[in-house]
Amino acid sequence: MMNKGQLIVFSGPSGVGKGTVLKEFLQGRENVALSISATTRQPRPGEENGVHYYFLTKEEFLKKVEEGNMLEYAQYNQNYYGTPKDKVDEALAQGKDIVLEIEVQGALLVKEKCPNALLVFVAPPSWEELRDRLVGRGTEDAATIENRLNIARGELKQAVHYDYILVNDTVEAAAQRLEHIIEAGRCRNIEMKDFIEEVEHHA
Amino acid sequence: MMNKGQLIVFSGPSGVGKGTVLKEFLQGRENVALSISATTRQPRPGEENGVHYYFLTKEEFLKKVEEGNMLEYAQYNQNYYGTPKDKVDEALAQGKDIVLEIEVQGALLVKEKCPNALLVFVAPPSWEELRDRLVGRGTEDAATIENRLNIARGELKQAVHYDYILVNDTVEAAAQRLEHIIEAGRCRNIEMKDFIEEVEHHA
Repeated sequence: MMNKGQLIVFSGPSGVGKGTVLKEFLQGRENVALSISATTRQPRPGEENGVHYYFLTKEEFLKKVEEGNMLEYAQYNQNYYGTPKDKVDEALAQGKDIVLEIEVQGALLVKEKCPNALLVFVAPPSWEELRDRLVGRGTEDAATIENRLNIARGELKQAVHYDYILVNDTVEAAAQRLEHIIEAGRCRNIEMKDFIEEVEHHA
Repeated sequence: MMNKGQLIVFSGPSGVGKGTVLKEFLQGRENVALSISATTRQPRPGEENGVHYYFLTKEEFLKKVEEGNMLEYAQYNQNYYGTPKDKVDEALAQGKDIVLEIEVQGALLVKEKCPNALLVFVAPPSWEELRDRLVGRGTEDAATIENRLNIARGELKQAVHYDYILVNDTVEAAAQRLEHIIEAGRCRNIEMKDFIEEVEHHA
């Protein structure tokens, strides 16, 4: 059987360790790609076009939006950030899985456009663990910390919209669970529709 | 994290190799149990109560049905067959996964009563492979064979109602996929609801 690529959306509160879990999972896997976002912000020193971001002018970005070529996008601090659809489609067509590390709002837009997408929310093993990480080493003032905690509370409330909750208790266990989720994803009814129709067609 | 047990419903056309895949999967796993059906038919030589079936009188069986203590049941050749709910609940409460190898009609009843149940349909890699197995070694008459093929066609049409389609291309690969499905099952949103509520409660 040819494995089709799957679109995996990966979100979670900041401080939960999304990046670390992804890095562990991606190690040695050639058949999974990380989606590269497009942005209208200026490259920072060391950032390369097509590696860290696709750097676009505002006009180029909005043209892609208009053409339906952004899977999702949002504006922060007067800059646009988005997921170019053509790059995702390309990877999927090659049979590669592609991971989008994006915010909840974007995740829900992707699910609307791509019902087959696997939405994975990374959760901390407990609120206390997340809080300890967000509080940090006590070098920030109370208002900054309270603001971080409030954002994390808001993000946790969004977990309900995701297909899977991936608890990051240890990086290894979480990466292993992510493998189960992605491999099981290929057997989902919605992914196997064509196969079953093909079998029935000959029956 | 304490793993809750999951209810796994396993179906597929006869000849597809469900039993072989299950046997391979269950090897060395102590945390998965096969559900034992109850029946009103007479034990055959060598069959033991509580091992092959729970043998009940018709009165005992129908009493359990009335008390809501059969997850699903059906009648074939004037005998009743069903899944005793108390035994399933017992295994799940102990944190064990429990596998029900049942027909499609029963599977849909279970899904109605237990929305968390994982419904897995075992499919052949192709119609030709299933047909070859059902045709057998040419010792049966054409009518018997045609009847088998018709039943298999009908069963394949039911795959659409299942959460997962497990293709039995090789027994090892299918058993591995079943592991992915069951492990990913624990991370499903619906299974993690209590956990997320607990985290939010402290946030």
